Amino acid sequence: MSTSSDSNGIEEGLSFRPTFDAAGLVTCVATDVATSEVLMVAHMNEEALRKTIASGEAWYYSRSRKSLWRKGETSGHVQRVVEMRTDCDQDAIWIRVEQVGAACHTGRHSCFYRKVEGGEWLSFVDADKVFDPEAVYRK
Amino acid sequence: MSTSSDSNGIEEGLSFRPTFDAAGLVTCVATDVATSEVLMVAHMNEEALRKTIASGEAWYYSRSRKSLWRKGETSGHVQRVVEMRTDCDQDAIWIRVEQVGAACHTGRHSCFYRKVEGGEWLSFVDADKVFDPEAVYRK
Repeated sequence: MSTSSDSNGIEEGLSFRPTFDAAGLVTCVATDVATSEVLMVAHMNEEALRKTIASGEAWYYSRSRKSLWRKGETSGHVQRVVEMRTDCDQDAIWIRVEQVGAACHTGRHSCFYRKVEGGEWLSFVDADKVFDPEAVYRK
Repeated sequence: MSTSSDSNGIEEGLSFRPTFDAAGLVTCVATDVATSEVLMVAHMNEEALRKTIASGEAWYYSRSRKSLWRKGETSGHVQRVVEMRTDCDQDAIWIRVEQVGAACHTGRHSCFYRKVEGGEWLSFVDADKVFDPEAVYRK
């Protein structure tokens, strides 16, 4: 818990050395640069992180589909990365993005459109759909 | 990818049913209610989530120490939860908190005190330490 244990410079150094977990992933939080709202939490593998840095647009790794995924590939709702940060132990990434359209596949601007009330129930903070997922994903 | 597949109401329902991963955890993002800054990314198991809701202060589960952890237990730097949200598939939690002192064990207000520059290097966005970790953690 002390910086004196930071012998390899992960916490205080200026070298970017992301720490991937056993599955080869880091957690990534995307926030809206305009509203500061948390848009989504997803994962990146090394390739997704590299492509995000190279292209300036967010790429993720889908754990359910087990594949690399360019955000907005199907919907056009890309995320342009304005700033990327890492945390103290370099196992999480925070990207501040310009969100085209909406971040959530349900059509809402953010995936966090419901708040927890009293521990068991949810209420909609933002029920409005920016797009119609049926039309966009053509299922 | 469509809401039509939301047959169990996870995405559109009003019942809070957090989806814990194989290790029994959900990812939690804490942001500062005053500045909207991302303070930290951590994990909660069912007990940590329950204690957070019951107490109104953040509890986490430490993967490295394999134990429940009340944020601020040692340092006094507790997080008072103003709002809790969940995401579309209910496997991530976003808490907006009043942060007492600083969130990061290195002494910075946020764990995300460095930004990624050009893919390989980091620069300090906020190098200032709110507290001296050597003194607080007495190592």
